[in-house]
Amino acid sequence: MSFKDEDLPREKVFRDPIHGHVIVDNQIILDLINTPEFQRLRRVKQLGTTSLTFHGAEHSRFGHCLGVYEIARRMCNHFQRNYPSKRPGDGLWDDRERPVALTAALLHDLGHGPYSHTFEHIFHTDHEAITRQIITSPGTNVNQILRRVGPEFPQQVASVIDHTYPNQQVVQMISSQVDADRMDYLQRDAYYTGTNYGKYDLDRVLRVMRPIHNGIAFEISGMHAVEDYIISRLQMYLQIYFHPVSRSMEVILDHLLMRAKYLYQHPSDYSPVFTPHLLMPFFNGHYTINDYLSLDDGVLTTYFLHWRNSGDDILSDLAQRFLNRRPLKSALYDATTEPFLPKLRDLISTAGFNDHYYTATNSSYKLPYDTYNPRDSQPQSQIELIQPNGELIELSQVSTLVASIAGKEAGDERFFFPKEMLVQHDNIEIFQPIYDEFQQYIQNNHIVAP
Amino acid sequence: MSFKDEDLPREKVFRDPIHGHVIVDNQIILDLINTPEFQRLRRVKQLGTTSLTFHGAEHSRFGHCLGVYEIARRMCNHFQRNYPSKRPGDGLWDDRERPVALTAALLHDLGHGPYSHTFEHIFHTDHEAITRQIITSPGTNVNQILRRVGPEFPQQVASVIDHTYPNQQVVQMISSQVDADRMDYLQRDAYYTGTNYGKYDLDRVLRVMRPIHNGIAFEISGMHAVEDYIISRLQMYLQIYFHPVSRSMEVILDHLLMRAKYLYQHPSDYSPVFTPHLLMPFFNGHYTINDYLSLDDGVLTTYFLHWRNSGDDILSDLAQRFLNRRPLKSALYDATTEPFLPKLRDLISTAGFNDHYYTATNSSYKLPYDTYNPRDSQPQSQIELIQPNGELIELSQVSTLVASIAGKEAGDERFFFPKEMLVQHDNIEIFQPIYDEFQQYIQNNHIVAP
Amino acid sequence: MSFKDEDLPREKVFRDPIHGHVIVDNQIILDLINTPEFQRLRRVKQLGTTSLTFHGAEHSRFGHCLGVYEIARRMCNHFQRNYPSKRPGDGLWDDRERPVALTAALLHDLGHGPYSHTFEHIFHTDHEAITRQIITSPGTNVNQILRRVGPEFPQQVASVIDHTYPNQQVVQMISSQVDADRMDYLQRDAYYTGTNYGKYDLDRVLRVMRPIHNGIAFEISGMHAVEDYIISRLQMYLQIYFHPVSRSMEVILDHLLMRAKYLYQHPSDYSPVFTPHLLMPFFNGHYTINDYLSLDDGVLTTYFLHWRNSGDDILSDLAQRFLNRRPLKSALYDATTEPFLPKLRDLISTAGFNDHYYTATNSSYKLPYDTYNPRDSQPQSQIELIQPNGELIELSQVSTLVASIAGKEAGDERFFFPKEMLVQHDNIEIFQPIYDEFQQYIQNNHIVAP
Amino acid sequence: MSFKDEDLPREKVFRDPIHGHVIVDNQIILDLINTPEFQRLRRVKQLGTTSLTFHGAEHSRFGHCLGVYEIARRMCNHFQRNYPSKRPGDGLWDDRERPVALTAALLHDLGHGPYSHTFEHIFHTDHEAITRQIITSPGTNVNQILRRVGPEFPQQVASVIDHTYPNQQVVQMISSQVDADRMDYLQRDAYYTGTNYGKYDLDRVLRVMRPIHNGIAFEISGMHAVEDYIISRLQMYLQIYFHPVSRSMEVILDHLLMRAKYLYQHPSDYSPVFTPHLLMPFFNGHYTINDYLSLDDGVLTTYFLHWRNSGDDILSDLAQRFLNRRPLKSALYDATTEPFLPKLRDLISTAGFNDHYYTATNSSYKLPYDTYNPRDSQPQSQIELIQPNGELIELSQVSTLVASIAGKEAGDERFFFPKEMLVQHDNIEIFQPIYDEFQQYIQNNHIVAP
Repeated sequence: MSFKDEDLPREKVFRDPIHGHVIVDNQIILDLINTPEFQRLRRVKQLGTTSLTFHGAEHSRFGHCLGVYEIARRMCNHFQRNYPSKRPGDGLWDDRERPVALTAALLHDLGHGPYSHTFEHIFHTDHEAITRQIITSPGTNVNQILRRVGPEFPQQVASVIDHTYPNQQVVQMISSQVDADRMDYLQRDAYYTGTNYGKYDLDRVLRVMRPIHNGIAFEISGMHAVEDYIISRLQMYLQIYFHPVSRSMEVILDHLLMRAKYLYQHPSDYSPVFTPHLLMPFFNGHYTINDYLSLDDGVLTTYFLHWRNSGDDILSDLAQRFLNRRPLKSALYDATTEPFLPKLRDLISTAGFNDHYYTATNSSYKLPYDTYNPRDSQPQSQIELIQPNGELIELSQVSTLVASIAGKEAGDERFFFPKEMLVQHDNIEIFQPIYDEFQQYIQNNHIVAP
Repeated sequence: MSFKDEDLPREKVFRDPIHGHVIVDNQIILDLINTPEFQRLRRVKQLGTTSLTFHGAEHSRFGHCLGVYEIARRMCNHFQRNYPSKRPGDGLWDDRERPVALTAALLHDLGHGPYSHTFEHIFHTDHEAITRQIITSPGTNVNQILRRVGPEFPQQVASVIDHTYPNQQVVQMISSQVDADRMDYLQRDAYYTGTNYGKYDLDRVLRVMRPIHNGIAFEISGMHAVEDYIISRLQMYLQIYFHPVSRSMEVILDHLLMRAKYLYQHPSDYSPVFTPHLLMPFFNGHYTINDYLSLDDGVLTTYFLHWRNSGDDILSDLAQRFLNRRPLKSALYDATTEPFLPKLRDLISTAGFNDHYYTATNSSYKLPYDTYNPRDSQPQSQIELIQPNGELIELSQVSTLVASIAGKEAGDERFFFPKEMLVQHDNIEIFQPIYDEFQQYIQNNHIVAP
Repeated sequence: MSFKDEDLPREKVFRDPIHGHVIVDNQIILDLINTPEFQRLRRVKQLGTTSLTFHGAEHSRFGHCLGVYEIARRMCNHFQRNYPSKRPGDGLWDDRERPVALTAALLHDLGHGPYSHTFEHIFHTDHEAITRQIITSPGTNVNQILRRVGPEFPQQVASVIDHTYPNQQVVQMISSQVDADRMDYLQRDAYYTGTNYGKYDLDRVLRVMRPIHNGIAFEISGMHAVEDYIISRLQMYLQIYFHPVSRSMEVILDHLLMRAKYLYQHPSDYSPVFTPHLLMPFFNGHYTINDYLSLDDGVLTTYFLHWRNSGDDILSDLAQRFLNRRPLKSALYDATTEPFLPKLRDLISTAGFNDHYYTATNSSYKLPYDTYNPRDSQPQSQIELIQPNGELIELSQVSTLVASIAGKEAGDERFFFPKEMLVQHDNIEIFQPIYDEFQQYIQNNHIVAP
Repeated sequence: MSFKDEDLPREKVFRDPIHGHVIVDNQIILDLINTPEFQRLRRVKQLGTTSLTFHGAEHSRFGHCLGVYEIARRMCNHFQRNYPSKRPGDGLWDDRERPVALTAALLHDLGHGPYSHTFEHIFHTDHEAITRQIITSPGTNVNQILRRVGPEFPQQVASVIDHTYPNQQVVQMISSQVDADRMDYLQRDAYYTGTNYGKYDLDRVLRVMRPIHNGIAFEISGMHAVEDYIISRLQMYLQIYFHPVSRSMEVILDHLLMRAKYLYQHPSDYSPVFTPHLLMPFFNGHYTINDYLSLDDGVLTTYFLHWRNSGDDILSDLAQRFLNRRPLKSALYDATTEPFLPKLRDLISTAGFNDHYYTATNSSYKLPYDTYNPRDSQPQSQIELIQPNGELIELSQVSTLVASIAGKEAGDERFFFPKEMLVQHDNIEIFQPIYDEFQQYIQNNHIVAP
């Protein structure tokens, strides 16, 4: 039975705040959405600690995945209406690619765990590898449904996700500088945070996309819409994703899990009596796909609620800081002022904080747009525009705005430390002289020579 | 030190998708937001199982509480700008009521637990009583901050919440047919579900509000804006809050907790080995405020993840149905067809489902608008309009639209049962004759005479 | 050459604030939009004097006509995707109806003149008849383009507009209680006025539409979306279209044109020397289609600018009141208080105003929803819902909300008079006693017994 | 009587699609809005020929002027709440500046005529000078109302408009890189065109503004919001204001008025018999303020309707092209290809078009952001950010994004010509060889070497 055979006689819809309706017109897609593996995504926040800075942004990965599917569906429709392939190799859109494109779009984030970035850092997991595993392992519900399309289908879907699928139009639809993934999350995260920065013109960008021989390009008449998307993406990074308070909460989370792992791996008199069953496979370093699929945000915060009362002061304090949202402070530094960090860590230690758990450096950098450089370890596909005579031209060749930001990194490097270090004079206490010394290094949110 | 003394020299803001910015200009309010009790609200979804029907609506009670505060703040500003009291008893707005109004608005939902409605049903808790307890118990962070305003202040705030505060303008600001609470949640839930129904004109309704001697009324020129609000509220109830799929998921949740409680209260060979520590005080019927404040949505779903693997088939199956979103089906019934329910339960039992756990009836009714009736057990304040000559007139006296729906209940009564009962002929199996008989009672989503 | 032969290889778009993009994929449609007859619609405001109450609503009929076309296009797509006809007479959608449906949608308002309602009142024109004339007269650009589809095509399009086209699905698409016309203008007028009242869920209503044998019906699962549309429509009428200030400005316009017509038809010493060339055919009662197509809003206001300086006091004063937006006041009356009107007109005369030009009565009534009544002179098609078993049921049978407003008129009757009559005591002047007497009849914006 | 004395006891509101409500709480402001001079702005489109490209954008200058007033009002409120002056010269906000600020904001565009830019080009008028004249001439209604505040008040308001008012906070509120004027029109034009580009975060930009000694600066924490505003402004220029089709329609308008002026100034046998009364003072070069105030968009288009039938072929053809929206085509050129223009004009002449009326060059350039340069003829105020320690820093010093576009011009140079020159081979006609030669110079919308 082919994918096409499972087309629904009438469309079904999911109401979605971003796209109005997500339209499902195939039984395979519907069944995939109803698997336990996909439903788990409801219990994993899309933006992790960002919701602690932008309280509106508590949405899960579930809606995002539906959204990526919906955008991919619209791309297929647009391509098929305006650029249908007439013969193999004409560089236009072959609609027989629709099943693999839609399925890969829907499932591309299946392997995300709770607070993915931090979780991967502490437990050395890899959400993309796990996504492919869920898709290709015979034991999962997802895999069983995909095999209805054909025995090779799961592997094909997985190959889109690791970019090895032969048709680059499909690969770029799911993963490129202007793909369905980014196109959804910029809009969605802007909506939920309540900011405008991510609100580029989705409809227009979709409309100026065109399949070409080796991927996807854009009509030159839509150049400004693509420009706007690039700028929106940059702004979302600078203002939302790199927000220092969210990064600070992620530092706390990271150190909290690091401490817990340490304690469970070094049992002692001080070790917690409470056993976090669902995390144990990860503390032990032996976990199955099923163990991974049992994790979600609520599991972690439930353990944090227990750890609040732990006998280990650091574990207990960090758990409280995380649950009660008590971020660390931060200051910017650069190559010139980096040499002061050891001194600052020293002062923090002297003030009674274990600097291993209570300080951190964290840099957030992003290339707003980069042209193709074959020497890069992971050369990014560049954005190509199509001129009236059919020739391609790379975006930064025609956009002054993009040219001016291309290749320049945006972001910052921050040193995180306990807010207590900034206490002011009027609270006379024993550590005040240390605090005072510390504060000489901080001016206008930067680390400076004292 | 008075509330006024803690005014901030410059306003602080929380970005909010509904109100743009929530503006905080007092240290007391800021400190209340930063308490662990208030931060816990981030971990309790505003709409419970509704997010399983409208996937966009995963927002927590935290944002809603900020929103209610913000609306109350705007009401105070509007009243103070346009209707400032000149002498006591003139029925205008006395801005010295601002602290108690803002604080009650911010804290009014503090006592909500996870999946409040169901939780209260199973464990006989009362979120409003708990809210008042958190406010007035000396041990809470909230109480300590409130006492900075004065020793009586916590009790005053609590009295606004139970409607006994003497100034009815303040009481109605927080609790009446058109209060800051409803005004926020209608807009907020509409935004997150991605529907329009709740989008009445908040700005206009606020603008036509006026303090009067015994509460709050509306300029008659704003009659249509109030009408629109009434209709929006009705539509949100019918289309969002009463959605049969959400109610079905709540039935499953209710029966799952009921089963768990039964098993923990009747330990036997089959009882689960796993101990849900944070729920035990509730299974045992002895809990403290602290036990209550340790609960959130994630704690419940973490236990459900464990219960999936329980040896008790019902507990395990219901936990999976909840986590994997596999709702019961439902059909409408009325007084005429209610007599068929025992027969239907019988058939469901015969088909192998414990009807105590796999069927339910559930009615959702709402008075769209009701005029004051002193004989009611809880007479609702009616909506009064002010005419140019200052006389009051009750809304349904002038609004044809409201008059036509006043006093009429809207809602339905549903019988819930396993989807399996609707299996069609082409799947030949042992229970098919029972399914067939069952299906004769169901037509057009109604229970009918067979 | 058929319509289909002129399909464009790639879609063209018009950016539209309501629908995002209006998509044109056929050369006939594009050429119709580019005719002088269609471009003239840019110079005729959609809402006439309403823009004098809601300053944001200055949009023209041009955008509305594109919007109606776009909605009809989406209906065709939805019908063709989900309910394609398999054999003649199966009651499903035959996509060969698309050309006539889209064309009729685009052109349905072609005959609107400046301030249509008032213009028709004074000059006895009929915009619907003129629309059909423009479509069927061989001399127009529109007609020439339509004939490319076939010699009968103009007549077919015209017959959709006067409801005599045989396929009632097409007729109801353009003209019924839930047609593309109303669906566009409610959203559009809400957007431009900046109000929410018209913002029902267009996307959802479109999605639950279904072709049936004798027209168009709605899936019962979408009942609430249709309900919401009905209520939105009612609210737009009560709050926007019936706004007393706009009606007052329309009274002034009506009387201004009436006065001008009188003066030009009764030349005398006082007659204006200025000749309003483009209006003369209408003053004379002999006009061609070309004369009509030379009129627009700017032509009228240009003549008003001249009339401001007319020697005729009434013409000059009314022109100034219109241009400078100085509305008449109004008060509500009913059968009981109507007998006071002669007395009020008397007082107004005595105060120096020609009551023929300075007073008016005006009633605005609207049936929010009416079930089919074959005895009505123009029985309205009722709204039918389709139940799961395929049976139809009329909307008010299942919607409490619609049932409660069905058949009840909403609106009011107003008496208009010069604002000067409400002058207060502190301005001592000769007419004050007359004003005082007048004011005894006015209370709370109603006419009352003195 | 002072401005303050005319404060209204209760606020009045204008519903506005951009700002929700425009709030008026002073009788002077209300009376100014009701003058004939201000009401005339309803008859002058904000964006001129842009509505012929973006059909949604038919809004007038009336709403924009209210919006600028509203933004200035919010600025005053924000300054007064957060930065009230305590003693003269402390660089904070003195609320006694409110009357002049609000009034200048409201009236700043009073002197705009129909299609201002083109009108000024042909008739050598200056809308800013006329604005000041309307404000300061004793004969206008506006002037009479302003004098209620004081005899010097009109002159003060006028001095804000020409930047000579001593308080630079007020001047920059109305005219600077981030003023109430630009802040309104970017949002408003984005709303009406239906594009997103102008939708920066108005609320946030307002919130981070601060009065400083010599004007207005921004908190550094709001840097990204200001950045976003700068980018939005640039995008609106590139995509909306500089749109080649609108510029093309403006070329036609310009040449149409030029032709009319020529014909009326050179009466001959061919001169039109029709007299455009309201334009004659401008053809003659002698006009009064009253003549100017009698002009609006409708007056011009009414004359165009007459000119369509003129005996002069050029006048008649250009009038039709304008009314029926038949733009010229255009191609980009630069210093290298500019030398081809004479040849192109030649070919166009040979093909039968008077190249004086049927071709044009037009360049649109904009500095996205410029730092202060005292050598500039009109040095722009730069944007200053305030650091935590109070020091100022110029925006491009901290914003990579702004730094990369600062000082770089964006825009293009276009050559306009009749669309007929691009006719393709399949239409055999006499001029085809000329068209073919012409087309060799045009590729990818650029002029190229043949």
